[in-house]
Amino acid sequence: MHQPDFFQKLIEQEIQKISFQQKPASLYDPIRYMISLGGKRLRPALLLMSNEMFGGDYNNAINPALGIEVFHNFTLLHDDIMDKAPLRRGKPTVHQQWNTDIAILSGDTMFVKASQLMMDMPDNCLRKSLELFYKTATDVCEGQQLDMDYEQEMEISIHDYILMIRLKTAVLLACSLQIGAILAGASEEDQRCIYLFGQNLGIAFQLHDDLLDVYSDEKKFGKQNSGDIIANKKTFLLLKALEVANSPAREELSRWISLPDFNAEEKINAVKNIYTALNIRQKTEEEMDKYFHEALQQLEAIRIPAEQKEVLRDFSEQLMMREV
Amino acid sequence: MHQPDFFQKLIEQEIQKISFQQKPASLYDPIRYMISLGGKRLRPALLLMSNEMFGGDYNNAINPALGIEVFHNFTLLHDDIMDKAPLRRGKPTVHQQWNTDIAILSGDTMFVKASQLMMDMPDNCLRKSLELFYKTATDVCEGQQLDMDYEQEMEISIHDYILMIRLKTAVLLACSLQIGAILAGASEEDQRCIYLFGQNLGIAFQLHDDLLDVYSDEKKFGKQNSGDIIANKKTFLLLKALEVANSPAREELSRWISLPDFNAEEKINAVKNIYTALNIRQKTEEEMDKYFHEALQQLEAIRIPAEQKEVLRDFSEQLMMREV
Repeated sequence: MHQPDFFQKLIEQEIQKISFQQKPASLYDPIRYMISLGGKRLRPALLLMSNEMFGGDYNNAINPALGIEVFHNFTLLHDDIMDKAPLRRGKPTVHQQWNTDIAILSGDTMFVKASQLMMDMPDNCLRKSLELFYKTATDVCEGQQLDMDYEQEMEISIHDYILMIRLKTAVLLACSLQIGAILAGASEEDQRCIYLFGQNLGIAFQLHDDLLDVYSDEKKFGKQNSGDIIANKKTFLLLKALEVANSPAREELSRWISLPDFNAEEKINAVKNIYTALNIRQKTEEEMDKYFHEALQQLEAIRIPAEQKEVLRDFSEQLMMREV
Repeated sequence: MHQPDFFQKLIEQEIQKISFQQKPASLYDPIRYMISLGGKRLRPALLLMSNEMFGGDYNNAINPALGIEVFHNFTLLHDDIMDKAPLRRGKPTVHQQWNTDIAILSGDTMFVKASQLMMDMPDNCLRKSLELFYKTATDVCEGQQLDMDYEQEMEISIHDYILMIRLKTAVLLACSLQIGAILAGASEEDQRCIYLFGQNLGIAFQLHDDLLDVYSDEKKFGKQNSGDIIANKKTFLLLKALEVANSPAREELSRWISLPDFNAEEKINAVKNIYTALNIRQKTEEEMDKYFHEALQQLEAIRIPAEQKEVLRDFSEQLMMREV
């Protein structure tokens, strides 16, 4: 069995080899640029790990894995337009480097390429995999729309939030893992388990991300600390705080959220103090653990020898242990 | 054999029945709106006509035909953003009625839906049809990019222009016709012929559109006459005029193109006079006839009884006879 970083490096190599046409350069240069920005290549690595776990030969699953990664990068490209993000991995986003029109059309073309890569599999896997892929693509679009809708709404419940991150983030991890399983010829029950493993892991992963924003060591993660607090992002932490706070604490939180001008450090400290008083860090960790535990139970239920599951179990534990 | 308007009406009925989820409304309302704007439903009708011509039962081809139409509407939706178009069929475009972010994401979701509708076909047709569909989707993106690139370039040859309209417009007609043929079990040779029929017809169709803009009867077509001239659109007519004009005529054309302020009627008359002097209308009609003739030869070459081809031949002649 191969380790996660073997697959991540393999994907990094293979994705640079995808051939795009030279012309029109204004269409394909942005795609090459977007793909060259790198990343953890988490989703395609999960696809290959799942494939090998179920006894598949990962060499036959590389193009579908690349399809998942190209699809993921297409969603990032279009999301960056909608979020007006100036940077992606420290470099200018495509709509900044070129323009919005080119970013829209390059994204569309990436989605087509993702579909073509996904089709490189035997006929007996094709329909099932594509059905899952397009169902997932619809989910991801719905998740992005909900995320945008929530920016305008004040009353978001924890339930709404979990639904949103499930659609926007978790289902693509789940889809990647299940396509690896389909290609390896796993049983329907095992496919269902690995999908639910991925979905629960994905939700836990996003909750962990919410935590990292507030409690990570800035130097280690190279990200501005507490950006979510400054931007009033409706993370699990904020929504939970609004849910459990008594009237005065909720009023103080609402006051900070509605303040147009503020000292960043002062706001961060004030909100963090409220989080501490309300035990928000622990409450988020409990929720995260709940989903992570459910993920592990689904992995447990898969009917293959336990030692074949070790790579995926260890990797998911590592994902949850990025230092908070 | 059924007539074109039977298929067009059928598609109009069936497309309104496509079920989209209710939520998020901000994602699906724009899709329902876009689809409700109507249109000639030319591409899906061609798919069904081709299918019946090759002996297929059109009832089994309706969802793939809807997939083509939803795809076409997705490209219109994203093109309208890029073209900053305020109106589509006399109604506000999606990005006007909602906003650009919603228009991007609704478009993406339509492309997913198009793929799902396209998959509703027997396994033995699936791979071939999807390969053609995604190849065509890539072509259409390239065509749109070339169209945008050409706006910034002065030196566009007729050859460049024909390549652009082939990609942007003609290949989707060709793809629709070939998928109808695939679903009917047509031979590889006949599939190739019907594809080339569609491609040549599509180019002729676009050249005809270029002519209509300048020479159509405004009252009949409800479109502002000569909008292409006012907008300096690089149509076949303008490019041909620039190609064949002597120095003084080319200078006069260039002067009108570069004028920032002008009287619209004066500009239209001046450019039309140049076109008349250079015999541009006739030259465009000759080019159009060349492609239309090539289309008919491809239809001729298909190895089925001539009477089965009548509907498609009559329809393509009608398309070319929209009054100039």
